[in-house]
Amino acid sequence: MNIPDPYRLESHPLLIIVSGPAGVGKDALIRRLRQRGHPFHFVVTATDRPPRSGEVDGVDYYFVSGDQFARMIERGELLEHAVVYGQNKGIPKQHVREALTSGLDVVMRIDVQGASTIQRLVQDAVFIFLTASSDCELEARLRARGGDTEEQVQKRLAAAREEMDRLPAFDYVVVNRDGELNSSVDDVLAIIRAEHLRVDQPVVAI
Amino acid sequence: MNIPDPYRLESHPLLIIVSGPAGVGKDALIRRLRQRGHPFHFVVTATDRPPRSGEVDGVDYYFVSGDQFARMIERGELLEHAVVYGQNKGIPKQHVREALTSGLDVVMRIDVQGASTIQRLVQDAVFIFLTASSDCELEARLRARGGDTEEQVQKRLAAAREEMDRLPAFDYVVVNRDGELNSSVDDVLAIIRAEHLRVDQPVVAI
Repeated sequence: MNIPDPYRLESHPLLIIVSGPAGVGKDALIRRLRQRGHPFHFVVTATDRPPRSGEVDGVDYYFVSGDQFARMIERGELLEHAVVYGQNKGIPKQHVREALTSGLDVVMRIDVQGASTIQRLVQDAVFIFLTASSDCELEARLRARGGDTEEQVQKRLAAAREEMDRLPAFDYVVVNRDGELNSSVDDVLAIIRAEHLRVDQPVVAI
Repeated sequence: MNIPDPYRLESHPLLIIVSGPAGVGKDALIRRLRQRGHPFHFVVTATDRPPRSGEVDGVDYYFVSGDQFARMIERGELLEHAVVYGQNKGIPKQHVREALTSGLDVVMRIDVQGASTIQRLVQDAVFIFLTASSDCELEARLRARGGDTEEQVQKRLAAAREEMDRLPAFDYVVVNRDGELNSSVDDVLAIIRAEHLRVDQPVVAI
């Protein structure tokens, strides 16, 4: 009898993309997911924006200068990169390669623009769209985060409204409600667990 | 902004089919799932086989006589029915209707034959295939269960081998290992949670 074994024999590492508009809590979700101690390989994004309070270089982001970022682009070292609200963000190719050979599930946080690019490059990734539960909640979070001018907050909100239109291209939607971050993390963990149990689970390759 | 809300606005009840060869532990899994206290609506199968030790009428099965079962067929009261190893099993239509109007997720345990029938009737159900981790494990369980003759055990094993071929028609596979029933239940719960988060979650109707 040919018994399929989703854990020991036939389950392949997954590439999980966590995306969504600015302010929905992507960074907080990834941080909490790390704290839970599951054996995931987290791909760290490079950015030339300054660290926010509590952010650690090499864990939350690779914080580089504008010049360094420009050199990474020139040398073709980025899988994709985008200017998000005037700040550069990009995924170093080298990290993705390392991640995919680690044998672990790979979790990648990326803005909605970037997710579209990855969707063209990798069809068999699992695309999760993180969202706030309402426009007001999103606005409140963007303000609470600080560091943005009123104009920037308005820009981010307008962009978020547009980015919501990209939702149908994603596989899953997780509503990250105020004070319910653990529930959102549980949602993501359930998605990853279920995807491993899919009969037609694909092999991801970049 | 049109925020989709998978729990409060747009999440529809799911129809979850738990199937798999005899001896893989479908009944034990459903029983443990009930014990966990999640608000599911369990569809109870009617059968004319005698109760096994500990089985409760109306909870594990509706235990009816051969005559009663024949009348249910005559009256068209069954959504589907099949003869499994000489014993009749069938899903009362009335229970499925009640279940689908309950607003809760509906969990239905059914043999592999029956699952094929349901697949033709309802495309948007979630089909979970439960399996043992090996042929030996399955054989040991069938023997431990008692009440079967050697010939019956051999018949069930041969049928199980054939039923494994139906796996590609299912959405998910859960390997129910000896002593790891809780892990299998967690698998099923993860599948249900993830299915609620799908962007293209369908509405089930029978």
